[in-house]
Amino acid sequence: MNAVPMHPRLVSLEGGEGAGKTTVLAALQAELAARGDEVLVTREPGGTPLAEMIRDLLLSPGHEPPAAETELLLMFAARAQHVREVINPALARGAWVLCDRFTDSSFAYQGGGRGLDPALIETLERGVVGLRPGLTLLLDLDVAQGRARTRGRDPQPDRIERERDEFFERVRAAFLARAAGDPVRFRVIDASRAAGTVAADAVARLREWRGGA
Amino acid sequence: MNAVPMHPRLVSLEGGEGAGKTTVLAALQAELAARGDEVLVTREPGGTPLAEMIRDLLLSPGHEPPAAETELLLMFAARAQHVREVINPALARGAWVLCDRFTDSSFAYQGGGRGLDPALIETLERGVVGLRPGLTLLLDLDVAQGRARTRGRDPQPDRIERERDEFFERVRAAFLARAAGDPVRFRVIDASRAAGTVAADAVARLREWRGGA
Repeated sequence: MNAVPMHPRLVSLEGGEGAGKTTVLAALQAELAARGDEVLVTREPGGTPLAEMIRDLLLSPGHEPPAAETELLLMFAARAQHVREVINPALARGAWVLCDRFTDSSFAYQGGGRGLDPALIETLERGVVGLRPGLTLLLDLDVAQGRARTRGRDPQPDRIERERDEFFERVRAAFLARAAGDPVRFRVIDASRAAGTVAADAVARLREWRGGA
Repeated sequence: MNAVPMHPRLVSLEGGEGAGKTTVLAALQAELAARGDEVLVTREPGGTPLAEMIRDLLLSPGHEPPAAETELLLMFAARAQHVREVINPALARGAWVLCDRFTDSSFAYQGGGRGLDPALIETLERGVVGLRPGLTLLLDLDVAQGRARTRGRDPQPDRIERERDEFFERVRAAFLARAAGDPVRFRVIDASRAAGTVAADAVARLREWRGGA
């Protein structure tokens, strides 16, 4: 089944709205950098000038809304560029790459959320991405709690953030199903706790995964 | 092999640089409209506001050049949107759709020209486009002759037009191979002749294809 090779220095962080990814990213970055390694922190969709322009097409509420298939292909167009221009070169020089969202988000949002065929997404992962993270930390959070958190801080939600709760329930279920199906790669972290606790937990999982090496 | 359904009112026009598509499109439009049918003339990449924005990302020489895979996915993202927002609704109301470039261009430019796997392109055609033209007119022209024609008229070639002759030789070969593999759908037209002659030939092929009905 899993013909897509894993790269041990690519770590992805996944999770829905309001799960506290920003705080966790900073903590993981500090942990990885503590041993003197180069750490590249990047995000999806985006990560290169062209990919950021694609991000704008995807997320700006003012643009013509993309069809589900268009959304999927724009996400993978941005990812194909990001992998070739940023991620692969960084991995090749021995850096850690810490990515805020990666291919699992496409399975969750466009597969689970929009109902697109996972087989098509797998074909794109195999054909145009060609690698998987060695470790994926999934910040799991009740949808209502996550939305309550983002409502407080984000006066301008993007196009996807404006979706209904049912959409985010499907996204969460798809993330959890992927995590359950690949326990070697995934760690599921309870993101309902205080941000500092969640970040400390994420760092502990990263440390444990590296085996204290 | 061909699981993608054909729509008899979708007609595409394909061909390399300088083959005279503009003149032929106008002639085909007039021929189709002569019986009182609605005729929608559109183009790829583009055809909707979002798809035209994707076109700009693809073709503007000033942007970060997309990797081959990124280019392919942006082409299909634009096409997925175009099909859903413009082409399918027009076909559903009984209009003719005359499209300046369609999926065959992806097989020719990103498959033949860039060397991407045709199986991936077929998956995208099946998974996100879902239809093929009933008739595809291919304007075939020697690469050097086509480039000589565009050099005269286009002071600002786009990113793809700036490719080398070897690229366009591969594009031409891929178009001809597709035409040879699907003689029911394709008509190959010698575009080395005067524009009026080429247009008259294209109209004659269209008329013959419709069986004088």
